[in-house]
Amino acid sequence: MVKQGEEYREYHSPHSGIFLKKERVLYRHKSPYQEIEIFENGFFGRVLTLDGLVMTTERDEFIYHEMLVHPAMISHPSPRRILIVGGGDGGTAREVLRYPVEEVHMVEIDRMVIEASRRYLPTISSALNDERLHIHVEDATEWIKGHEGEFDVVVVDSTDPIGPAEGLIGQDFFRNVFRSLRDGGIMVIQSESPYYHLDTIETIALRLSRIFPILHMYTAPIPTYPGGFWAFSLATRGLEIRERQKIPAGLRYFNRSIYRGAFALPQFLKEKVEGLVRDPF
Amino acid sequence: MVKQGEEYREYHSPHSGIFLKKERVLYRHKSPYQEIEIFENGFFGRVLTLDGLVMTTERDEFIYHEMLVHPAMISHPSPRRILIVGGGDGGTAREVLRYPVEEVHMVEIDRMVIEASRRYLPTISSALNDERLHIHVEDATEWIKGHEGEFDVVVVDSTDPIGPAEGLIGQDFFRNVFRSLRDGGIMVIQSESPYYHLDTIETIALRLSRIFPILHMYTAPIPTYPGGFWAFSLATRGLEIRERQKIPAGLRYFNRSIYRGAFALPQFLKEKVEGLVRDPF
Repeated sequence: MVKQGEEYREYHSPHSGIFLKKERVLYRHKSPYQEIEIFENGFFGRVLTLDGLVMTTERDEFIYHEMLVHPAMISHPSPRRILIVGGGDGGTAREVLRYPVEEVHMVEIDRMVIEASRRYLPTISSALNDERLHIHVEDATEWIKGHEGEFDVVVVDSTDPIGPAEGLIGQDFFRNVFRSLRDGGIMVIQSESPYYHLDTIETIALRLSRIFPILHMYTAPIPTYPGGFWAFSLATRGLEIRERQKIPAGLRYFNRSIYRGAFALPQFLKEKVEGLVRDPF
Repeated sequence: MVKQGEEYREYHSPHSGIFLKKERVLYRHKSPYQEIEIFENGFFGRVLTLDGLVMTTERDEFIYHEMLVHPAMISHPSPRRILIVGGGDGGTAREVLRYPVEEVHMVEIDRMVIEASRRYLPTISSALNDERLHIHVEDATEWIKGHEGEFDVVVVDSTDPIGPAEGLIGQDFFRNVFRSLRDGGIMVIQSESPYYHLDTIETIALRLSRIFPILHMYTAPIPTYPGGFWAFSLATRGLEIRERQKIPAGLRYFNRSIYRGAFALPQFLKEKVEGLVRDPF
């Protein structure tokens, strides 16, 4: 079952994509939700794929996880109770736990992603045993309904919004995220590639802007994601964002300049979300 | 000689890279300097490769060409005489010629790149017949020696600094670029991928910082370049940069927010060029 020496290919369009040599396949399993694979690549290190799409690699995961977490965390006046939706590999929890938070709840639907990451991606999953982290293996679209007014920051670290994660960009889910936030709360959600999924980005922005009074969008370059370029949406219950927390030491992508600069959107993206999102700076 | 239905593969490391289906090969020729190929891809449109590396594609060329040209052009008080080094496909000239410039000199070593682009990349090479453009098919490292104090902006649009373009990141060449500028002049040079060529970026920054009193660096996400992420170095003869020209209409990547935001460097890159470059904003 575990074949060696294959090549991993990911089509980003029917005509193009990336290839990664599989130096060694470490894990391959079909969970009730998706096909999970972890393999070793000579450049990117260990690579986690779900249903044949790269989710994270040891070499470039810091960009995605830092950029998903830190803009929201440093913008909040007092981020104490945090919810992570998805994020089974643990990278998002690791970044959140760099702050003096009280409680982090992670709601991941697929137990096997957590288990495989614990075993084969130690540098990414390192924080999964932190005593402040509470892991719930459940469907976040249901779980969140029982948690109103509880969180300072909600981080949606989902797979692409097809298959198991489709509900995580739904209007109902966004409304429940809004309700789950305390006053002044912030939500952030990974929002796909401006070069490949511009319509999905527009859909996310449209739906969020109907519910949240303030919506921002920012980007980061991520080599193993389609187009090497990724969008993130950050919405607040009215809070004007600015730097309110000390930036944790040891980060490799995020810093004060990036915090401000990342919200500058390329013209084609800006035009697509015109009137829905605004530049905070 | 012109085969159909092949796959184009570009290794970005020995273990990874991109693939593009060649729907149709339009041109393939070995010039005295390099292997030139233009093929059609269903997603990226026509693709120009030199020695097996993607130089430009119809779909994403706007990002590279806009970001190479506009930050320097809008920062200059009066950009009238411009030098382009390389840039045989014409995309850089097209962006420069959006301004009311008087004279643009393009010094490209390989006549065949110009001819192939004229014939097969019409949207990119459209400005090559502009009467303000003077094309010199020569080695820029030699040509520039006879042109002191002539240019307001010098744009170095080179291939990777191996093979024919190696001299274009040399200390002598940089010194001659400095001399070719008028007072207040600006030079900009494409500077490779922060994810793949961090040492080359450091070398370029070290060499430029020895000659130019002010050096900045900025980035842009470019899907078909290694890592999907590219650096640019912008150096001045002492001019403090700020927005001085009206941004041309019709751009698809560059805008006022990007002008400021693009100079925000990721922490790992900032640390690599610490003390050599500074954020202008």
